[in-house]
Amino acid sequence: MDELKARILSEGKVLPGNIIKVGSFLNHRVDTALLGRMAEEFGKHFDMKKVNLILTIEASGIALATMCSYKWGIPMLYAKKAKSDNIENGLFCSEIYSYTYKKTVTVMVESEFIGPQSHVLIVDDFLANGEAIRGLTDIVREAGATLEGIGIGIEKGFQGGGDKFRKAGIDIYSLAVIDSAENNTIKFRD
Amino acid sequence: MDELKARILSEGKVLPGNIIKVGSFLNHRVDTALLGRMAEEFGKHFDMKKVNLILTIEASGIALATMCSYKWGIPMLYAKKAKSDNIENGLFCSEIYSYTYKKTVTVMVESEFIGPQSHVLIVDDFLANGEAIRGLTDIVREAGATLEGIGIGIEKGFQGGGDKFRKAGIDIYSLAVIDSAENNTIKFRD
Repeated sequence: MDELKARILSEGKVLPGNIIKVGSFLNHRVDTALLGRMAEEFGKHFDMKKVNLILTIEASGIALATMCSYKWGIPMLYAKKAKSDNIENGLFCSEIYSYTYKKTVTVMVESEFIGPQSHVLIVDDFLANGEAIRGLTDIVREAGATLEGIGIGIEKGFQGGGDKFRKAGIDIYSLAVIDSAENNTIKFRD
Repeated sequence: MDELKARILSEGKVLPGNIIKVGSFLNHRVDTALLGRMAEEFGKHFDMKKVNLILTIEASGIALATMCSYKWGIPMLYAKKAKSDNIENGLFCSEIYSYTYKKTVTVMVESEFIGPQSHVLIVDDFLANGEAIRGLTDIVREAGATLEGIGIGIEKGFQGGGDKFRKAGIDIYSLAVIDSAENNTIKFRD
């Protein structure tokens, strides 16, 4: 998606450890008009008529998933991390390793909101190692739901997470795939 | 807002400890069309032309704040909890006590995204004791920004958080104020 790539080049910052910061428009300060256009872009690849649930994970995935849900008229469900008092029902869970926080966290959704009737598009703003997305695919499988695809804003292609899903035959579509970020220069996959 | 109150009555669950669960449409599974109408409702109370930043806090506030940002064409900034590797700039911070997680957490925003030029509408889905919102007002003050008001989806009036801000002269507008939730019966403030 050319507009997204242009924003990454103009506003993205490469930090040590291959961290790419896009906090000025994607995951801290958020340009929701851009997110709306990203949501529309997913509709060029995925058949949204087949999808009846947008699934994401807190926190940063929520904004893009909200715009996908709103634009396509599909309910959104976000997986929560760790246990809070407000979740007491049956749960579908998965353990994932968070490279951002350097610890294992449990991701969970309440079982009443996803099941064999669900046709799920997983949406997240960022994909690197793919741990968060792997946790969400675990939940989809556990629930007996159908995974229709995975829509990602920015994929860090050089960390391999996206290609793991492609090799497994999953329909994953990233609006911008960054193949290298060395010497402060961002290069996109064609 | 009558539509929101009707949804609370039809789908809300009262749990021990005065917890009101609205996870079927507000803060787990999310009805973003409803959130869009909630965002429009805020425009009947607040002068959105004065606002140039929507401020919320991760995670559950992000969906409603995203819809406010999108409907009104105003950038959204969400405060983060605890430190992650991706935040390395100057920060505005506040310590808040989370009753949900029973611990003190630090909320923070990067200082480059809010300042004396900012006219801020704080938005959150829920207000109970008001700790999260108090943290956001701390950040607004620390940044030298102007607080234009606070827009809340559901306020648990019996926990007093909202009235604290009203007594302090802050323009706070809640779309539904629950004044009691005893014996599994939800009563709204007029």
